[in-house]
Amino acid sequence: MKLAEFDTWMRSEADAVESALQAWVPVDAPAGLGLAMRYGMLDGGKRVRPLLVLAAAQAVHGLREAAMRAACAVELIHAYSLVHDDMPCMDNDVLRRGKPTVHVQYGEAQAMLAGDAMQALAFEVLTPDDSAAMPSALQARLCSLLARSAGHAGMAGGQAIDLASIGRPLDEHALRDMHHRKTGALLQASVLMGAACGNASAAQWAALADYGDALGLAFQVVDDILDVTQASATLGKTAGKDLDNNKPTYVTVLGLDAARRHATELRDKAQSALARSGLPDAAWLSLLADKVVERES
Amino acid sequence: MKLAEFDTWMRSEADAVESALQAWVPVDAPAGLGLAMRYGMLDGGKRVRPLLVLAAAQAVHGLREAAMRAACAVELIHAYSLVHDDMPCMDNDVLRRGKPTVHVQYGEAQAMLAGDAMQALAFEVLTPDDSAAMPSALQARLCSLLARSAGHAGMAGGQAIDLASIGRPLDEHALRDMHHRKTGALLQASVLMGAACGNASAAQWAALADYGDALGLAFQVVDDILDVTQASATLGKTAGKDLDNNKPTYVTVLGLDAARRHATELRDKAQSALARSGLPDAAWLSLLADKVVERES
Repeated sequence: MKLAEFDTWMRSEADAVESALQAWVPVDAPAGLGLAMRYGMLDGGKRVRPLLVLAAAQAVHGLREAAMRAACAVELIHAYSLVHDDMPCMDNDVLRRGKPTVHVQYGEAQAMLAGDAMQALAFEVLTPDDSAAMPSALQARLCSLLARSAGHAGMAGGQAIDLASIGRPLDEHALRDMHHRKTGALLQASVLMGAACGNASAAQWAALADYGDALGLAFQVVDDILDVTQASATLGKTAGKDLDNNKPTYVTVLGLDAARRHATELRDKAQSALARSGLPDAAWLSLLADKVVERES
Repeated sequence: MKLAEFDTWMRSEADAVESALQAWVPVDAPAGLGLAMRYGMLDGGKRVRPLLVLAAAQAVHGLREAAMRAACAVELIHAYSLVHDDMPCMDNDVLRRGKPTVHVQYGEAQAMLAGDAMQALAFEVLTPDDSAAMPSALQARLCSLLARSAGHAGMAGGQAIDLASIGRPLDEHALRDMHHRKTGALLQASVLMGAACGNASAAQWAALADYGDALGLAFQVVDDILDVTQASATLGKTAGKDLDNNKPTYVTVLGLDAARRHATELRDKAQSALARSGLPDAAWLSLLADKVVERES
């Protein structure tokens, strides 16, 4: 019963995010820029981050419009990072979400600009002129959380470590530090941005931060597992590329079985943190943790 | 007398911006990312945008710390755009501020990440946890102005038009539209972000917007003139590259003499708008308009 309800909630929220993004990502930006942005943004992706924002907002009875804007902003940052990450000077990947990557479709210069403009758009979405829907203190708080998770101490910093680690051995500690930043920071920020849309006590905030932290690592461990166990067609992106690129992953460091156990432990840790929060309406957050670990793509 | 005082003010404010940026751009970001960010950011540039922020803030008796943060944030956006613009897939330039460009020095991947992290850092700088120094309504307003001027409707959109216009004839109207976005939007935003740090009436705000608009175009017209009249050593970047790249400029569209007259007219327009604002302490803004038109690099 709960699971069916959860699936319905996920589908309906993913659709709502898709519509909101449609409205935000400009079709009429000059000289094809809007087309490249939309191509990199729409009709694809699991929308894990927006769902985390919306589930966390629901757990704290947060403002709906603010949460939807936060959900779109986080996804814009995630999507821009994929556009840049796929470029020849980074991962040089030609397939993403089952389609040619943005630079293959629109050229490298347009892909770089589209990514840049998507990052700026994330902060536009968070700062409407109308502070009735979104009080300016909340606008500032969301910009702060997003900028810090996307920048040098978060995602971009993790990508720099990733770049520098190709072909070099990393121990589990160094690997965890990289992923904390590269994917963990934005996933955790998604949870906290949702929480910021309502009123969480300091203890609830800390518990949600722990949930986001464990979930962020679980997500990456599963990513590393899927990279070796799934075919490209299932993933919608090139499989096996970590191995091909000689990149350290949880599978290369821990082995496949231990990596699987580790993912389950992290899921349990995330769900314990939720229980500790005492929030009565955190069911979707809990089920999202299951989803992240059980996903097949 | 006034001019000597202005020179002293400029030097002292440029130094203050340099110190503030030093403190903001992280030396310890992981895996060399901080070094690439600092290389792209420090010890160079005319700091025109920060000076506009600070002069506008002074004209409205704005909050000092907020204005300094806004000045750094604008310069971070400007600097990131140069780092990305110089990359091989865009302008492919090897010289900037008299030094090898960031991608030449640190590689393309690191240059792309450094630019991305600089954009995020701009929004971090605008959103301190401590709202005593910078009320959260002002934080949100500054993020809004900066994001809109940097994104698809502003700078990134202008760059997309620029890309698409190589080798194609543009009339003066289309050229003006491109520059309004590409360089004008961020220059105008600099003035308005400074103004937002204090209390400007609606009429004063409109006058400052007109000033910023005219000054932004004047800046670009002069850039186009310098590209054909100055040597690379003076500019600190590759001269003549617009012509080499077959890019339309104010010089190719209007001719050199008419471009010079146009720059002077735009300066006069900017200064008339200032006079209309009735702000008694707008002397530095007026002299900055002279500086922009009379500069030799």
